[in-house]
Amino acid sequence: MLNSVLDSIDAAQAKSRQNLFDLLKFKSIGTDPAFAAECRAAAGWLVAYLKAMGLAAQTHETSGQPAVIGQWGEGRKGLPHVLFYGHYDVQPVDPLSLWHTPPFEPRIGQTARGVEAIFGRGTSDDKGQLMTFLEAIRLWLAAHGSLPFRLTVLIEGDEEGDSSHLDRFLKAKGKALKADIAFVCDTEMWDEKTPAITTSLRGCIAEDVTVTGPALDLHSGYFGGPAVNPLKVLSSLVAKLHGANGRIAIPGFYDGVKPVSKRRLAQWKKLGLSESHFLGEVGLRHAAGEKGKSLAEQLWARPTAEVNGLWGGYTAEGRKTVLPAKAEAKFTFRLVEGQNPAKCRAAFRRFMRASLPPDCRISFAAHGGDSTGIAVDEQNPWIGAAAAALKDEWGTPAALVGSGVSIPVVESFRKHQKMESLLVGFARFDDAAHSPNEKYDVESYHRGTRSWARLIGKIAEGKWK
Amino acid sequence: MLNSVLDSIDAAQAKSRQNLFDLLKFKSIGTDPAFAAECRAAAGWLVAYLKAMGLAAQTHETSGQPAVIGQWGEGRKGLPHVLFYGHYDVQPVDPLSLWHTPPFEPRIGQTARGVEAIFGRGTSDDKGQLMTFLEAIRLWLAAHGSLPFRLTVLIEGDEEGDSSHLDRFLKAKGKALKADIAFVCDTEMWDEKTPAITTSLRGCIAEDVTVTGPALDLHSGYFGGPAVNPLKVLSSLVAKLHGANGRIAIPGFYDGVKPVSKRRLAQWKKLGLSESHFLGEVGLRHAAGEKGKSLAEQLWARPTAEVNGLWGGYTAEGRKTVLPAKAEAKFTFRLVEGQNPAKCRAAFRRFMRASLPPDCRISFAAHGGDSTGIAVDEQNPWIGAAAAALKDEWGTPAALVGSGVSIPVVESFRKHQKMESLLVGFARFDDAAHSPNEKYDVESYHRGTRSWARLIGKIAEGKWK
Repeated sequence: MLNSVLDSIDAAQAKSRQNLFDLLKFKSIGTDPAFAAECRAAAGWLVAYLKAMGLAAQTHETSGQPAVIGQWGEGRKGLPHVLFYGHYDVQPVDPLSLWHTPPFEPRIGQTARGVEAIFGRGTSDDKGQLMTFLEAIRLWLAAHGSLPFRLTVLIEGDEEGDSSHLDRFLKAKGKALKADIAFVCDTEMWDEKTPAITTSLRGCIAEDVTVTGPALDLHSGYFGGPAVNPLKVLSSLVAKLHGANGRIAIPGFYDGVKPVSKRRLAQWKKLGLSESHFLGEVGLRHAAGEKGKSLAEQLWARPTAEVNGLWGGYTAEGRKTVLPAKAEAKFTFRLVEGQNPAKCRAAFRRFMRASLPPDCRISFAAHGGDSTGIAVDEQNPWIGAAAAALKDEWGTPAALVGSGVSIPVVESFRKHQKMESLLVGFARFDDAAHSPNEKYDVESYHRGTRSWARLIGKIAEGKWK
Repeated sequence: MLNSVLDSIDAAQAKSRQNLFDLLKFKSIGTDPAFAAECRAAAGWLVAYLKAMGLAAQTHETSGQPAVIGQWGEGRKGLPHVLFYGHYDVQPVDPLSLWHTPPFEPRIGQTARGVEAIFGRGTSDDKGQLMTFLEAIRLWLAAHGSLPFRLTVLIEGDEEGDSSHLDRFLKAKGKALKADIAFVCDTEMWDEKTPAITTSLRGCIAEDVTVTGPALDLHSGYFGGPAVNPLKVLSSLVAKLHGANGRIAIPGFYDGVKPVSKRRLAQWKKLGLSESHFLGEVGLRHAAGEKGKSLAEQLWARPTAEVNGLWGGYTAEGRKTVLPAKAEAKFTFRLVEGQNPAKCRAAFRRFMRASLPPDCRISFAAHGGDSTGIAVDEQNPWIGAAAAALKDEWGTPAALVGSGVSIPVVESFRKHQKMESLLVGFARFDDAAHSPNEKYDVESYHRGTRSWARLIGKIAEGKWK
């Protein structure tokens, strides 16, 4: 049963590529209102495509771009209901001048490493990725006329913009969109030869801070010495956020953080993530996070407190002997499983207030979009089924990795559908997602499609629990 | 002889004000190249004004903005040659949004204290101040047709920017600009009723600093934790500049600083400078400088290390989860008599380099215009003459005070002309020099002019030695 699908995936490569190219041509930059019509057209194309392969499909209005839902309503008794998630919106393309060919005219070319790849905006993030799954479904249906299990496909258009649109949509849909598992295809392989399953994500909260001191900007000659300088005060607060050991010094900030299991640590150690390789790519050599924690732990299992922007005083050419009346900064905090975003925010505010010297005031503004850190139990049978399918396809056991970023939909599924996610993707380290000349390896697309077919096969055989 | 001049000063107030307004309208921001033509126009206006009152005058090119020199070549035998110094350049006007009226459209208004004042950029620093002297000269010449002594007027355009331009100019001029004394009008009164003579000044050095880390801006999800954040590093360096006791922590920075004499400390104590009064005016209550030093010492006799501007990362609306590739800051250091500016700069750079974590680089750019701290002997006879003239005008003995600011020209006069300075000015505590809504009290302008006329009278009577 599986082999005939794999054969037809191999035979249909030209058609699969054409389908992807059709989707890539839509300038579906969801975050920019100027491209709203392109987003709607991409959603319309997806509906037609899903219908053509045999699913019931339609667009659904949200507070942002339209979402597409496709459904295969029946499955064999005892088999699960699977939801597949992807996003058709793409990042803006600026700076356009750095693109070698137009971002919405997909083409096949060679990467710097001499690998055949599909170039264009959205190839890797996320149109190419989502099409690996949809092509597997299309060719399974073409070969067998039906799917073995019930399937819901959800493709949204606000992933790169404001994730609260989809969150509201999922909240409103509630149980209607509940499945036994969500497959999310928006992550990377470990390296060119090693597939990966992502088992943890960091959450994120964001705060803006303003420190004020004197009632007005002061002359550093007339007041320098006795007058408090808010820029120095805010710098000192930033400096105090971490201890000498790199640990965040905010009391209570680590509440709920569990130590990483020995099993997981051993697994990560085996991955051989090295400072020279990982940090070397961006001009660094030394892991600057918590002392005594491995690079993988610092990236995937430990929270951060980062200042993303800070400004105050005179910042133009020349000099100005001013003591500024205020200083401002933007902070984000990456959170791991167990931390409560609201409590972390409150702990940060308490800490900053407690460290404030006399004569200064501090104010805070929260950005929306809080997300929690998420870790998935690796004993979870879906991971076993996916790992087996991936090993069958790639010949190499899948790496179980963490990720330092947030994928807010995973939390939304947990909250509104009480549904866990399985994170499998085929993007590569050099895909340049969010950058000019984004690409997706031809091998990622082809073997990604085969990988999903194999997982469908595992589920059909009952190897998912 | 004096009385007729004082009478004409009183009678000519409207004209004196008009002359000042004419000068205030030039946007002579010397530090910003965009305003070079405005500076040249201000200099041209001054030349015409000096010529009209009877002085020989012309502009002189410097390596910066043009300087204006006016001369009255003859004087009575036995009377001194006096040089008067002021500057026509003004501070930048940002933030413009905080100005109640346009900075270069001078107007008469009421201060928060209900006092009549002239509002506009440069009213107090230094156009209003320099015009007190020039109007006294104009009206003396109008009344008597000649001055009793030889006079050189020097008005420059680089005081708020790079004072090395005027220093080079004075070095080149050498003896040609030597007089027996320099009158410098760029300082404050002690309070609304008490004139002041300034007997010490702090020097100043300025440094720009750039800290770089990763080769490019990084995503805080993919790299947050192990990747060093230059904005955090620079904040920590700023925080380390001072110890918990408020003392500057740079090794060697205090080399050469002498303790203040008991006599001077006693004099300062008598002035009754209080935190609640001095700092209360600008919304502060606590002297934040070195612990164990009086407010007067912190202001006039102790060096400072201040950050005047700092910026890096994302500073616009919303949030951006970026780890910036670099962070920048502007520093100034106030120095006191005995400190060597070059050695202080070197000590700062050594300290910053020594505190830098791995994977970061730091670069420094010195602004020109280093100046040393200066203390004047209070027994000096010019101080006696000025004190007598000020007491005649204000009815209150002049306070002998220190000043926290730098007036680099005082050092240049010492070095190149072997000439001491007499520092008398009529600015007020609430003038907001360097800030939005700068003003100069109408009384400062009027009685400042009368004060200079009285000092001219003292010199004419031989009461200056």
